[in-house]
Amino acid sequence: MKKTSEIDLHHLQLTDPFWLGYQRLVRDVVLPYQWEALNDRVADAEPSHAIENFRIAAGRSQGEFYGMVFQDSDVAKWLEAVAWMLCQQPDAQLEHTADETIELIAAAQQPDGYLNTYFTVKAPEQRWTNLAECHELYCAGHMIEAGVAYYRATGKTRLLKVVCSLADHINRVFGPGPQQLHGYPGHPEIELALMELYDATANTRYLSLARYFVEQRGTEPHFYDLEYERRGRTSYWQNYGTAWMVKDKAYSQAHKPIALQETAVGHAVRFVYLLAGVAHLARIGGDEEKRRACRRLWDNMTRRQMYITGAIGAQSHGEAFTSDYDLPNDTAYTESCASIGLMMFARRMLQMEADGQYADVMERALYNTVLAGMALDGKHFFYVNPLEVHPGAIKCNHIYDHVKPERQQWFGCACCPPNIARLLGSLGNYIYTQTEDTLFVNLYIGSEVTVPAGNGFLTLRQTGNYPWDDTVDLTVTSQSPAEHTLALRLPGWCPTPEAVLNGEPVEIRPRQGYAYFTRTWEEGDSIRLTLPMPVRRVRSNPLVRQNLGKVALQRGPLVYCLEQADNGANLHQLRLAAGTDFSLAPGQGVLAGKIVIQATGDSVQDTDAGQQPLYGYDGEPPRRRSRQLLFIPYFCWANRGEGEMRIWIEEA
Amino acid sequence: MKKTSEIDLHHLQLTDPFWLGYQRLVRDVVLPYQWEALNDRVADAEPSHAIENFRIAAGRSQGEFYGMVFQDSDVAKWLEAVAWMLCQQPDAQLEHTADETIELIAAAQQPDGYLNTYFTVKAPEQRWTNLAECHELYCAGHMIEAGVAYYRATGKTRLLKVVCSLADHINRVFGPGPQQLHGYPGHPEIELALMELYDATANTRYLSLARYFVEQRGTEPHFYDLEYERRGRTSYWQNYGTAWMVKDKAYSQAHKPIALQETAVGHAVRFVYLLAGVAHLARIGGDEEKRRACRRLWDNMTRRQMYITGAIGAQSHGEAFTSDYDLPNDTAYTESCASIGLMMFARRMLQMEADGQYADVMERALYNTVLAGMALDGKHFFYVNPLEVHPGAIKCNHIYDHVKPERQQWFGCACCPPNIARLLGSLGNYIYTQTEDTLFVNLYIGSEVTVPAGNGFLTLRQTGNYPWDDTVDLTVTSQSPAEHTLALRLPGWCPTPEAVLNGEPVEIRPRQGYAYFTRTWEEGDSIRLTLPMPVRRVRSNPLVRQNLGKVALQRGPLVYCLEQADNGANLHQLRLAAGTDFSLAPGQGVLAGKIVIQATGDSVQDTDAGQQPLYGYDGEPPRRRSRQLLFIPYFCWANRGEGEMRIWIEEA
Repeated sequence: MKKTSEIDLHHLQLTDPFWLGYQRLVRDVVLPYQWEALNDRVADAEPSHAIENFRIAAGRSQGEFYGMVFQDSDVAKWLEAVAWMLCQQPDAQLEHTADETIELIAAAQQPDGYLNTYFTVKAPEQRWTNLAECHELYCAGHMIEAGVAYYRATGKTRLLKVVCSLADHINRVFGPGPQQLHGYPGHPEIELALMELYDATANTRYLSLARYFVEQRGTEPHFYDLEYERRGRTSYWQNYGTAWMVKDKAYSQAHKPIALQETAVGHAVRFVYLLAGVAHLARIGGDEEKRRACRRLWDNMTRRQMYITGAIGAQSHGEAFTSDYDLPNDTAYTESCASIGLMMFARRMLQMEADGQYADVMERALYNTVLAGMALDGKHFFYVNPLEVHPGAIKCNHIYDHVKPERQQWFGCACCPPNIARLLGSLGNYIYTQTEDTLFVNLYIGSEVTVPAGNGFLTLRQTGNYPWDDTVDLTVTSQSPAEHTLALRLPGWCPTPEAVLNGEPVEIRPRQGYAYFTRTWEEGDSIRLTLPMPVRRVRSNPLVRQNLGKVALQRGPLVYCLEQADNGANLHQLRLAAGTDFSLAPGQGVLAGKIVIQATGDSVQDTDAGQQPLYGYDGEPPRRRSRQLLFIPYFCWANRGEGEMRIWIEEA
Repeated sequence: MKKTSEIDLHHLQLTDPFWLGYQRLVRDVVLPYQWEALNDRVADAEPSHAIENFRIAAGRSQGEFYGMVFQDSDVAKWLEAVAWMLCQQPDAQLEHTADETIELIAAAQQPDGYLNTYFTVKAPEQRWTNLAECHELYCAGHMIEAGVAYYRATGKTRLLKVVCSLADHINRVFGPGPQQLHGYPGHPEIELALMELYDATANTRYLSLARYFVEQRGTEPHFYDLEYERRGRTSYWQNYGTAWMVKDKAYSQAHKPIALQETAVGHAVRFVYLLAGVAHLARIGGDEEKRRACRRLWDNMTRRQMYITGAIGAQSHGEAFTSDYDLPNDTAYTESCASIGLMMFARRMLQMEADGQYADVMERALYNTVLAGMALDGKHFFYVNPLEVHPGAIKCNHIYDHVKPERQQWFGCACCPPNIARLLGSLGNYIYTQTEDTLFVNLYIGSEVTVPAGNGFLTLRQTGNYPWDDTVDLTVTSQSPAEHTLALRLPGWCPTPEAVLNGEPVEIRPRQGYAYFTRTWEEGDSIRLTLPMPVRRVRSNPLVRQNLGKVALQRGPLVYCLEQADNGANLHQLRLAAGTDFSLAPGQGVLAGKIVIQATGDSVQDTDAGQQPLYGYDGEPPRRRSRQLLFIPYFCWANRGEGEMRIWIEEA
């Protein structure tokens, strides 16, 4: 694949009905709500203290640091989300609030460039003494991402300078020199951030530093052990036992060098953040070994450890991967942030290699787990996204302690809400990939984009009503003809894509998941892509013991689920009729504007099951009666009060 | 039901081929092995230190207490097991070891009767200050049970006097008086033990004290809170957070008075130990309210929260019950001790009310979970008895942290191994129930028993080859004729029991699970009971979401399972053919002497599943091919190395 470059978001305007609704929600509700939360002004929500921590570090307020050791990152992610929204539409008041926040952050930065409120306020002498556990480089990474985004959005360099100074400080502290620390973060994030900073500044220091962190990871003698001994075997997370984050190195993907890692292991968010950085580095550096490592780990994750919803991380313990084909639906952890990180990793793989599978996964994560992470009201959030919920059992069986049947207002560890906001804000980054001669359309999201083409520019307008309707129109609106290739993704879920070029049907010859159209494009040229969206039954690989004999429904990119609100309790008693027809219907109430699926199935006739014995001998299977089933898009679940939910259903 | 009384085990001789094998194992292997373990002489096993703790408390050794706060109970349970074995067969050397141990225990008793090595050695000033957490009354209860058993077995009163003195001490400390503690144990056990002591001594002090503990339980102001405040809010289990055993009162069934409790909740062992005591007390006291509470809680437990294996306690957290119909097979906790306690509770219900359902449950627990708790070699034990195991997933997914795929040599918390030994030793207590005019045969275990009948005695010889063969012969061997009723249990699993009296078929008219035969019995009279044992398909109530669509196989009292050793990996891919015939075959190798079941089923043709996508659209269900399945008795699982196991199987 030829060299890819970022789409300048100033040359991309979102026009999509589905996503404009979400962006409006982010602008009007999510960002103001989260600003209130960061300032501890949301009643009955977990306190944040994140802004106050910066005030204290800047000497503008008195008090103690409060919150997680990585509390700063919530502010950074919020700022990044603001930046992306400002790309879409100016907002003087929002920009003013952001600028003030940036001044506050700048004031909290130390003369040597160091920036972290926990250590500045609480333990300045312990700076850089506990990489394995304390998220300093993680927080720095998020601030760098915010600085780059704000610079790209507004052209303002105030925060960019702050984070360059921070990165330069880090570059002095870490490296191969005898006086430097030979370390790397417990929670990856700095790697991908430094690559973004390199992209924005072209300063090779940041590229080298990213490579240093990546290549140093997992080498022996192990840095986590060395620093653990140096600081006298103390652990930050005392409540969680004895320094397990130091000892369980696979938790942080630091058990061996990345080049030797074979499977997705450990904390899922760390894994995808790390690999996003490695993929970016592999592409920029043309590093074949790193590319192979990315591909190998991508394959293991997406082919053996990913849920149908694009969720990853099957267990609560360590918020981590488990093992191949172990995908429990009800005890799944499947953090919202992990699917966001999966999209970030997928996007960077796509920039390295134009293979539709990356976009397929990106789309799967986006339209299912990422969207499910936030309520339709924009004010409630899931940290954990199970694929099956039994509220009654959750209350009593502690294997479900991490599962909430309803979204929460905020969290003590509030990584997910602002992460969702910045992902939705930056969605423009995921729609297209560009190389010198090709514009790849990865996601079908209504938008207008201008890219360099030949000696001029090509402007393309994408319209449609995805993910509900199957037609996507791409129209050239730039006036000067330009030779260029358009590569349209052919989603893996679509059995029979069709294309019409300027009114004439054209044969599609897919190449690695894309249909390529090369010509001299003139104003008014158009491609109509039809992506038929029949309701499809999905089956898991038979090695997934939790799903054998079951099917899930998917239409377009959307995975569907059953909810108690529509189908009554005891969803496990429902079966889908093998030969049922599916009919589509408009959603009602809070689901207005969504398409729901009706199907025929059956359920157990168990009106008196509570009176029946627990075990019965030689009986027939329970009698069943035919009934209608109603499936709703998974991302909409839990917007109508507490109730059962499940994605995988038995087939009759 | 008329008044029941205990069978004197000196008048009962076990002759059963199946159980004599087990009793031989207990005598020759289990008790010597456990004695070595209690003395810390088993290589590579968890240390016990239990005997050494007594030596230190007795002043015969120097050192620190080591082990669980209830470590003493392991010694008591071992002694009790020895006592029951001595009832069966004299063993001078074993009795000598026991007598020495009793002398050691007596030497560790304090002048006021107090007996507990933890508090005596480590914290004498903290005696009786932490009932909720510290198991003092629990340990006392086990020692009392041992004292009663040893007295019944040998007639020796040394340990009986020790425990009477201990019980008298407890009776001074606890009670309604202004200077007394108004408390009761966190872990029930003293209640049932005091009832045994009352039975053995006829001293009503012990009956009253048992009643006090039972009736005081769950009253307000709550004793756990009062003592918590009194001792300055300290918690013994500091590593497990802040005094949750004090605060989560349902964990100890102390959330409300027993008379008001509606469902089985909390720690499963505590629950059944408590209810065993309450049932005994209800029977002796003729207390209808307590009887109703026992029945209500029994019903909830056995009809909504009990596994097919007679296992209880569905979750690891708190080793506890969860909620109605929540019976996960793979994350089940289902402690061996809980099924032993279930047998104890069932036996006491049966003594109160001649209803075959109690014996059915007792038998279910015995032949499945209790036996599964010990390896066929008598030297390895399960604490946790899952109904489905995936060794690969166990290694990585921490929801399985409590599950071991192979039995262990010993445990830091070693409650189960000696509990199994004492249960097997005391099996004679469970076979028969007697009232003045009726001998109830509850379990079909070869034995000879003599009971008072009329003005003389009736001796009955029971023979058969249960649980493998369907014929049980009961023959009168006493010479004097005696009018009496024999009540033979008709197991719930048996569809068509038949009886032949002195060669003549007789019609069976079941009454609450028993067939009654009243006559003047003469020497040589015999009943042949035939309990046909077809292989039966068992289905769960459709409210059990984990088992819907699945069946389990049961033959006689034995629940069967599939093991990887016989059926290969990926047991979840196997289905049982709906119309299959079952054939019986002799077990091979370590399973010699057992009957295994062959059946036809199918499995997925997935030789290349590892190469297939994780999710597939619109495909047919995976292709299957017919194959033979082999089921082994569940109690024999995990005797052939590590592998998958499952009880519930899909039906084709």
